[in-house]
Amino acid sequence: MATAVIPDCSSPATTARLLDFRGFRGGAVHLRQSVSFRSAKSTTTTRLMVMACETSAKVIDGKSVAKQIRDEITEKVSRMKETINVVPGLAVVLVGERKDSQTYVRNKKKACEAVGIKSYDASFPEKCTEEELLKCISEFNSDPLVHGILVQLPLPRHINEERVLDSVSIEKDVDGFHPLNIGRLAMRDREPLFVPCTPKGAMELLHRCGIEIKGKRAVVIGRSNIVGTPAALLLQRENASVSIVHSYTKNPEEVTRQADIVISAAGHANLVRGCWIKPGAVVIDVGINTVDDPESPRGYRLVGDVCYEEVSKIASALTPVPGGVGPMTIAMLLSNTLDAAMRTHSFK
Amino acid sequence: MATAVIPDCSSPATTARLLDFRGFRGGAVHLRQSVSFRSAKSTTTTRLMVMACETSAKVIDGKSVAKQIRDEITEKVSRMKETINVVPGLAVVLVGERKDSQTYVRNKKKACEAVGIKSYDASFPEKCTEEELLKCISEFNSDPLVHGILVQLPLPRHINEERVLDSVSIEKDVDGFHPLNIGRLAMRDREPLFVPCTPKGAMELLHRCGIEIKGKRAVVIGRSNIVGTPAALLLQRENASVSIVHSYTKNPEEVTRQADIVISAAGHANLVRGCWIKPGAVVIDVGINTVDDPESPRGYRLVGDVCYEEVSKIASALTPVPGGVGPMTIAMLLSNTLDAAMRTHSFK
Repeated sequence: MATAVIPDCSSPATTARLLDFRGFRGGAVHLRQSVSFRSAKSTTTTRLMVMACETSAKVIDGKSVAKQIRDEITEKVSRMKETINVVPGLAVVLVGERKDSQTYVRNKKKACEAVGIKSYDASFPEKCTEEELLKCISEFNSDPLVHGILVQLPLPRHINEERVLDSVSIEKDVDGFHPLNIGRLAMRDREPLFVPCTPKGAMELLHRCGIEIKGKRAVVIGRSNIVGTPAALLLQRENASVSIVHSYTKNPEEVTRQADIVISAAGHANLVRGCWIKPGAVVIDVGINTVDDPESPRGYRLVGDVCYEEVSKIASALTPVPGGVGPMTIAMLLSNTLDAAMRTHSFK
Repeated sequence: MATAVIPDCSSPATTARLLDFRGFRGGAVHLRQSVSFRSAKSTTTTRLMVMACETSAKVIDGKSVAKQIRDEITEKVSRMKETINVVPGLAVVLVGERKDSQTYVRNKKKACEAVGIKSYDASFPEKCTEEELLKCISEFNSDPLVHGILVQLPLPRHINEERVLDSVSIEKDVDGFHPLNIGRLAMRDREPLFVPCTPKGAMELLHRCGIEIKGKRAVVIGRSNIVGTPAALLLQRENASVSIVHSYTKNPEEVTRQADIVISAAGHANLVRGCWIKPGAVVIDVGINTVDDPESPRGYRLVGDVCYEEVSKIASALTPVPGGVGPMTIAMLLSNTLDAAMRTHSFK
């Protein structure tokens, strides 16, 4: 049975037009999860829909770019082992029994293995003390076999996340979350030792797709420490004119519509509609959100922040979710770990 | 003799209209120093000129706000001395014989004296070594009488500025230039120990003038480590939607015209014209530029980045130069030094 996914904030009339416009004549219509955000004005939607038929966005295939990067890393790791007999090592610290965290950690370790990076485990029960955690990190800090340390977030509430993250040696801060790395990222003529993996992955996609950044208007949606803020700083370092849109921004769609490059890291399914996007803009969707989907065997599916159906007809290029920035994040973690090992051993 | 200052990028026709508009009928006309930046389109200028007659900006008197802050500091310093017998101390490190640096240092020391903060000197000849400088800073770092350390910039070229600034203990980094302080400023849920004085002064002016920041569109012109970047981070911390305009921005006037709050720290005389400003916006002019002025006894005078004559008729509030942000910078240095001493001695 043919299906179409219709953004839930479309009016019935708009929905009808949308279906009609796509030549959709039958089948089931699923409404996306409701999102409490300003809805697009239908007039704008209609106008943009007309333009929509003239273009179709290039899909930025993060999966294949990430594969290419992992291959490059595999080759370098192997060369390093052959030349100086050093194997890059990543320590992964996990606290508690969160299913999602366990999955992330398992995937990271598998990815390490696949490129020849050795991973070291440290798992703590939910109730462990901050001191136990700090002691463990301190040991990894002084372990010469460990070049990168990753503390899987979130930590349980009784643990001071700031204190734990700040205790990671900045030479091994492969997540790039240490304020000294963020500070250097924000400053001109300074170089961070590491850049946070997800925004680094987003930038790498832009680079590898040959998208010019200098002098472009860029909008970052969201301002988290781990994605939005470093993404804005990275874009600015490459001489884009950056605006940041967040929950207090009164006219997010208007601001976003001025951008040549949009990086969305808001964590709201379906937030970025077609009418938010300037025709021809490049859109990097960092959001990973789950929405109910009775048709899926798991009862839910993953979507980004971007209304893919609409935006793919307005943007010139767009990352899908899944298969966009997601695979890049792990590739960048491997890349940062390799960089750490190469820096420590002055290997080029 | 009556005089009028006419921005030099006005066309003759616009100049004539401008003079006419102001009811100016005679006297000398001085042209401002030439600035190589995109000029305003005369049509826009004309349109804004019409609006200009309807409003006149409130002048934000930085001199008097700074005086008020210095009075508050004097009172606290005196209370601290009486209560715990501690006098806040500021070490000022000067390298070389630059006239402007000598003047700045002299003014800072005088300002310390006036509020009861003790200043400690260290002057080095132009040819001193980096090691001499680092040794001096290390001594101030461990001197309990010194609560703040200021290294007057710029340093001679043979000295690594980054290494010198990073050697200042972050507990004494009253200039707020340490990357760890900048990193914390950039991060949510983190608190810098110190905020750089000039942007802190600009924000303090907004606060003391009762200007709402949350949810407003703000544009920062310039992205230096010491003003533009921290100003943008500060505005964002207070939930403004921030855009940064810099030398690669293709349409700076268009971007700036969207702002409710403009902080200009570009260092270009006469850059920000009336047509750059949304009617009713608040404009903080951080620029301090010298322009030739044969009528002045010194042969030059100080101006900001903002074309005061035009913008004062469009904005709702505006800082003058001199007498705007300038006096606030020194007041914030005193405030940071007092904060450092209070923090060290847990004095409230």
